[in-house]
Amino acid sequence: MDERIKKQLDFCLEIDKEKNVFRQTHLSGHGRAENDAEHAWHMAVMAYLLKEYSNEQIDIGKTMLICLIHDIVEIDAGDTYAYDEEGKKTQKEREEKAKERIFSLLPEDQADELKSYFEEFEAQSSPEARFARAMDNLQPLMLNTSNDGGDWKARGVTAEQVYKRQSKTLPGSKRLYEVTDEILKGHIERGNLK
Amino acid sequence: MDERIKKQLDFCLEIDKEKNVFRQTHLSGHGRAENDAEHAWHMAVMAYLLKEYSNEQIDIGKTMLICLIHDIVEIDAGDTYAYDEEGKKTQKEREEKAKERIFSLLPEDQADELKSYFEEFEAQSSPEARFARAMDNLQPLMLNTSNDGGDWKARGVTAEQVYKRQSKTLPGSKRLYEVTDEILKGHIERGNLK
Repeated sequence: MDERIKKQLDFCLEIDKEKNVFRQTHLSGHGRAENDAEHAWHMAVMAYLLKEYSNEQIDIGKTMLICLIHDIVEIDAGDTYAYDEEGKKTQKEREEKAKERIFSLLPEDQADELKSYFEEFEAQSSPEARFARAMDNLQPLMLNTSNDGGDWKARGVTAEQVYKRQSKTLPGSKRLYEVTDEILKGHIERGNLK
Repeated sequence: MDERIKKQLDFCLEIDKEKNVFRQTHLSGHGRAENDAEHAWHMAVMAYLLKEYSNEQIDIGKTMLICLIHDIVEIDAGDTYAYDEEGKKTQKEREEKAKERIFSLLPEDQADELKSYFEEFEAQSSPEARFARAMDNLQPLMLNTSNDGGDWKARGVTAEQVYKRQSKTLPGSKRLYEVTDEILKGHIERGNLK
């Protein structure tokens, strides 16, 4: 086996660990906590099926790839809950370190490529990154809605906090933000959000 | 919410169930059994990173999509272990029924599109389907190798059975089949395969 393919396979094995990074979101049917790999898979399929609602023209292959890799850094940095204000203070630093270590397992050209997609997602600097962010918001919203807002209730999350996060869907998709707004209004009516 | 987007979101929620379909493969580090959603995520990332080894030119977005959706039918049909000869007798029928029910949740154009990708994968009738099959073989081989063949040992799987399955990597990638052969020879030497 040559060095290049060895590096590629080492990286592929390393990311298996993403299946052990658990999120605050629970599976539908009041199931167990979801992990990052499942979340990424779900986002990528949704990106493909909902691509007609992107505000801008997107390269769907690139969008799916961003969805698939956007949480790999959490293998080292851990999941930071969207409403954990303390955790968010150190999130950037933890994720930067992780980015360097993990992507550098790949051959240099591919390490650079994946790092740049990750950075694009963080900076929200492309249409694909913006649509991927819309998926990153809509996917857990959908699961949490199926569980009647259980994840928010357990943490005492407020409507204001959720709107702040979900507003980041708007640059990716006006249509999906309208849907989000409709869903959130239902939650407020049912008393699921403070 | 209009009918089209409602159908799309209903399908997106339905496939959440794929995270509860468990496979015979175990995660690296002698971890728990892997589920279909994790397996599909892993295959899609690997397809992107290993695409240079495809025998034929492939559309990588389409290849990733095939990886992501190829096991959705198992929500109804269950996972059939690659070396379960009894289960394989009814696999086709179970999966056909599942295909009709699950994909038909989508708007018709998207139902037809996803069904045709699934059929392409089953029939191995395109370069993308052939490369996706190579991933479907290599991904569990990689995990099982990291666990020193534990999944085969637990089931008493033979070298002949594994070679029969892994030979289906060859139409997708000669190079990855060479790597597979190298890995399998190591397992035989170490006594992991009968």
